Amino acid sequence: FIIESFEGANVADIASLLDELNMDEAIYVLRLLPATTAADILIELDEDSLIQVIRELETTELAGLIDQMESDDAADILILMPTKDREDVISHLQEKEKSANILDLLRYDEDSAGGLMAKEFIRANKNWNVVQTIEEIRRQAEKVEKIYSIYVVDNRQHLLGRVSLKKIILASSDTKISDIYEPELISIPTHMEGEEVAEIMRKYDLESVPVVNAKNRLVGRITVDDILDLIREQSEEDIQAMTGISADVEESDSIFRISKARLPWLLIGVIGGLMGAKIIGFFEVGLSKYIALASFIPLVAATGGNVGIQSSSLVVQSLASKSVFDDTPWQRFIKGLLIALVNGVVLATFVFLVVVFIYGFESIFGFTIGLAMFCVVLLSSFMGTVTPLVLDRFGINPAIASGPFITTANDLLGLSVYFGVAMLLLKL
Amino acid sequence: FIIESFEGANVADIASLLDELNMDEAIYVLRLLPATTAADILIELDEDSLIQVIRELETTELAGLIDQMESDDAADILILMPTKDREDVISHLQEKEKSANILDLLRYDEDSAGGLMAKEFIRANKNWNVVQTIEEIRRQAEKVEKIYSIYVVDNRQHLLGRVSLKKIILASSDTKISDIYEPELISIPTHMEGEEVAEIMRKYDLESVPVVNAKNRLVGRITVDDILDLIREQSEEDIQAMTGISADVEESDSIFRISKARLPWLLIGVIGGLMGAKIIGFFEVGLSKYIALASFIPLVAATGGNVGIQSSSLVVQSLASKSVFDDTPWQRFIKGLLIALVNGVVLATFVFLVVVFIYGFESIFGFTIGLAMFCVVLLSSFMGTVTPLVLDRFGINPAIASGPFITTANDLLGLSVYFGVAMLLLKL
Ligand SMILES: [Mg+2]
Ligand SMILES: [Mg+2]
Ligand SMILES: [Mg+2]
Ligand SMILES: [Mg+2]
Ligand SMILES: [Mg+2]
Ligand SMILES: [Mg+2]
Ligand SMILES: [Mg+2]
Ligand SMILES: [Mg+2]
Ligand SMILES: [Mg+2]
Ligand SMILES: [Mg+2]
Ligand SMILES: [Mg+2]
Ligand SMILES: [Mg+2]
Ligand SMILES: [Mg+2]
Repeated sequence: FIIESFEGANVADIASLLDELNMDEAIYVLRLLPATTAADILIELDEDSLIQVIRELETTELAGLIDQMESDDAADILILMPTKDREDVISHLQEKEKSANILDLLRYDEDSAGGLMAKEFIRANKNWNVVQTIEEIRRQAEKVEKIYSIYVVDNRQHLLGRVSLKKIILASSDTKISDIYEPELISIPTHMEGEEVAEIMRKYDLESVPVVNAKNRLVGRITVDDILDLIREQSEEDIQAMTGISADVEESDSIFRISKARLPWLLIGVIGGLMGAKIIGFFEVGLSKYIALASFIPLVAATGGNVGIQSSSLVVQSLASKSVFDDTPWQRFIKGLLIALVNGVVLATFVFLVVVFIYGFESIFGFTIGLAMFCVVLLSSFMGTVTPLVLDRFGINPAIASGPFITTANDLLGLSVYFGVAMLLLKL
Repeated sequence: FIIESFEGANVADIASLLDELNMDEAIYVLRLLPATTAADILIELDEDSLIQVIRELETTELAGLIDQMESDDAADILILMPTKDREDVISHLQEKEKSANILDLLRYDEDSAGGLMAKEFIRANKNWNVVQTIEEIRRQAEKVEKIYSIYVVDNRQHLLGRVSLKKIILASSDTKISDIYEPELISIPTHMEGEEVAEIMRKYDLESVPVVNAKNRLVGRITVDDILDLIREQSEEDIQAMTGISADVEESDSIFRISKARLPWLLIGVIGGLMGAKIIGFFEVGLSKYIALASFIPLVAATGGNVGIQSSSLVVQSLASKSVFDDTPWQRFIKGLLIALVNGVVLATFVFLVVVFIYGFESIFGFTIGLAMFCVVLLSSFMGTVTPLVLDRFGINPAIASGPFITTANDLLGLSVYFGVAMLLLKL
């Protein structure tokens, strides 16, 4: 009955359904389905469901499913297992070639081009003719689900170019590949970061791209479906970094799970706020003399936060799409400083005018608030620009710079500057 | 010389270069290049450069370039022109069929499937055999740059399924299309939102997808390269909504341009802060009696902000990937409320304990701060959940809910609640 009702349903839809079932039910369904279908479903499962499922399946069962997968998907699943179990599964695979391919892919960093590529694709020797190439396509047809381009290599597997299926279809049978292939070709080194691969494929409108090793030998191919998954994953990671919602939480998850994910970061913010209370407490004597200083705390805090987030998001954006026209770090720094000066002067003047002429405070008080604003704008710009650059340098996702931890630290800095300036100018 | 140095360079690279040149130089280069190359470059230009370039080009020049483009790119460019100029250019196009296609595409909303699709693709009648299909591919080869799948239709243009180029190559010449096509096929209605199309293509690993009208007649095809552009555009729009950086600003733009984009939103934040100062001013008498209340302003403001951003980003995320398992608005509301209660109780208790037992305040004061925190958490959760839902209902990008305008409004609400609770409990 289950098999029947799944007939015609897409594997991605079945996977979404299994994600919502409990583990026993999911395993039961997977065991009922033919191995090719079950393998396709496995690939599409959520990472958390996937980890549970592979823990439950027998080694031979899992090996049977992995036998049906392309090498990149197989490696993505095996990387989730403890090394021993992984080796066990690989030793049970039917084809030697596939085991070797998977072992090769497991060597690369998951987020690099090597970790994204698959070993299944069509390559043609430049000396072949069209008939020989079609023969090769026939041989590989089972293994390579989508062909896109055929990559052309010389006898030593150096990548020379590509020829499209369209050209193969339209050429006469005895045409030589060397006469029809396009030598202009973008290729990707195995160590390139996944984000950069995505940007290259977007910019040059590619649905697949060949990956070469240091010797320009063709070692794999990255396809756009995996790039779409990568982009989505990374934008989710960025949102998580910015909002501080840890773990892989969705609105449909349980209340307990969502609260558990949200609370740690809220607590960090609260602890920061409590430390802020201590800082303000130090200035309590001065504050009691100039009670109006308290009124402008939210103004200074909010402005610092807004400036910091704007600065860091501009930097994060430019880090994501590196271009040849990028400024050097030093130019960036100077430019950031100049923009902060412009913003700082405009906002400080505006605040001074409102505080003195509309709210009717003494001009020394207005000047204090304005100067404090100016300093906070400069400081927040600086922190907002430098933090993501530093994080990126250390291989940490720079989007964290807009997250609660850094924001809280900036708030504390801003408060100190505000009261510092006020105490100095108002001689409290 | 210029032509020579561009030979072999990719059009996307030349486009990036022209984006950085001034208008006269860019136009000069475009006029030097062959029309096919110039057309490809035009498609890849930044929107702001593009608008300037098409304003400078003669109608006949522009028509000559549009002649070389696929219909979707042509429509994307023409939509940027005033209606009169647009009609002028269309009347100068060489092919009647292309003019008709473009006019058809211009009818659709830019961000809908109709606005994303192209009219160039290969369709095969189910009664054709492989040879006839290859003939059709040969006829259309010039017009359709990338073929991917061939869509199979009946005599009345109803979409029946697809057949891959791989199958065509491997089948014998007299095989009938009706014997080899796959009838399972995902198709997109013209009115579907682009974001949803992108999610479908990602989920089902598609590099192209057929678009059908209300009568299930095949009217166009969306390819993944345009989806990659759409995804990037929308993630940039979201970042702009969240950071309040208006206009299309990059870190490499001029200081004046960046400041102009950033200042308006910073000013909104500043005006909000100044209004906050007024609110706190109302409570100045009470504040002077209980000066410590000032110390906890940043704590309350930061917590409200963090809770609000977490709530709204969860909602925005779930709006972006609608699924069958989504809760109803009412379930969402109840769930959000329960999560807020959990978070509120935990955070309020923590704050109470720290304020009373570590900072050594009276317990009534600790209770006041704790209760105020609890109210602010509830309020911010509510606003953070409801605002993006309301914005989305009115067709506004819900990501704005994490932007400066809404954040500022929430800050003011939070301040009022904080002081309201404090005045009541401390009887000030
Ligand atoms: Mg799950
Ligand atoms: Mg991988
Ligand atoms: Mg593109
Ligand atoms: Mg294109
Ligand atoms: Mg793959
Ligand atoms: Mg896949
Ligand atoms: Mg990264
Ligand atoms: Mg530009
Ligand atoms: Mg369009
Ligand atoms: Mg996928
Ligand atoms: Mg297109
Ligand atoms: Mg395009
Ligand atoms: Mg939208």
